[in-house]
This record gives sequence, structure tokens and C-alpha cells, in this order.
Amino acid sequence: MIKVSVLYPNTDECRFDMDYYQATHIPLVESKLGAACRRIEVEQGVSSAAPDSKPPYVAAGHMFFDSLEAYQEAFAPHAEAIMGDIANYTNVEPVVQISEIK
Amino acid sequence: MIKVSVLYPNTDECRFDMDYYQATHIPLVESKLGAACRRIEVEQGVSSAAPDSKPPYVAAGHMFFDSLEAYQEAFAPHAEAIMGDIANYTNVEPVVQISEIK
Repeated sequence: MIKVSVLYPNTDECRFDMDYYQATHIPLVESKLGAACRRIEVEQGVSSAAPDSKPPYVAAGHMFFDSLEAYQEAFAPHAEAIMGDIANYTNVEPVVQISEIK
Repeated sequence: MIKVSVLYPNTDECRFDMDYYQATHIPLVESKLGAACRRIEVEQGVSSAAPDSKPPYVAAGHMFFDSLEAYQEAFAPHAEAIMGDIANYTNVEPVVQISEIK
């Protein structure tokens, strides 16, 4: 199982519209990727290790696929539509981490 | 649900012993945290967005708890034992991100 994590750095000037992200962006991603994307998890940053510290990432989205090839085939045709929507909910450039679930 | 992510930055000089991490560190964490830790997910970095690019994190571990309080109560008494084991499998300082699952 492959996990594609899109992490939004918590910069001083960052803006992140969680309502738009959940109500519009995630459904857009789901409709474009189809069944190849097994599931999506969304999370909101709370803190770093110390209570009340600043979380490194303000938010994150994780997409799960059976394989790297399944992700690439599903994502490539829709990359422009999906990435073109990012400016509608945030002004930070996300960090992308692709991992294998152990 | 609260997710405590421990992310290991993929530096040029980084060392990460996945075998030790999975066979020794994760069981140690599970035994110390007990039932408060609902589950643990381990992942190995593959790449960033572009194929063959370097993943931002060489590996990551994610611990799930019912609440921030449940995490703090379970972790605090064992923080020293758990964090003291980190040097046995890596030479990088992890980034900790605590998030709320949406």
C-alpha cells in the first residue's frame, strides 16, 4: 500500500481554509482519482510534541493507493485540475511525501 | 481521534534502521503506551511528488489516541524510555506533528 501525503507547512503567513478543503477540494480529488484512490484521510494540525507548541503542518491530506503505478496512472491525467485548485484554499506550497506502508 | 506523527527527516547523513525500528522500537512503544494507543502505523519514505525524487522523510511512525489527554497521560510516564531508544535506530532528530483526524 502506497500513501501519498500532502503536508501544508505552518508558516507565519499561512492561510488554510479547512471548510473549502473538506467540502470542495477533497470531493474534487475523489472524483478525479476514482477507485484507484482507496481512501483519503484529512487532518488538522494541533501542536508539536510540547503542549501549545506550533504544529509543523497546519493541515495534511493522505491518499492511499495499491501501488506507486496505480497512483501515477490515476493522478497524472488530473494533476493540473487538482493542483490548480490548491490556491483556492491555501497560500502555502505543500510538501509531498510518498511512502510505503509497512 | 488524535494522531501523533513522528517524522524522520531524510538528511544527507541520515541513518535509519527499519529492522530495529519495527522489531524493537515499535513493540517497546506499544508495551509502554498500552491500550491508550489505539494503533501504530509505520511507513518508509519512497519519494516526493516526482518519480525518483528524494522523500522529505526517510520513515515515519504514527500513533493514534482517543484524545490529546489520553496521549499525554500514556506517554509522559514513559517519555524517557521511549525517546532514549531513538539513538539505537537513527541519528536524525524527528519532527513531531500532533493532528486531529477530521
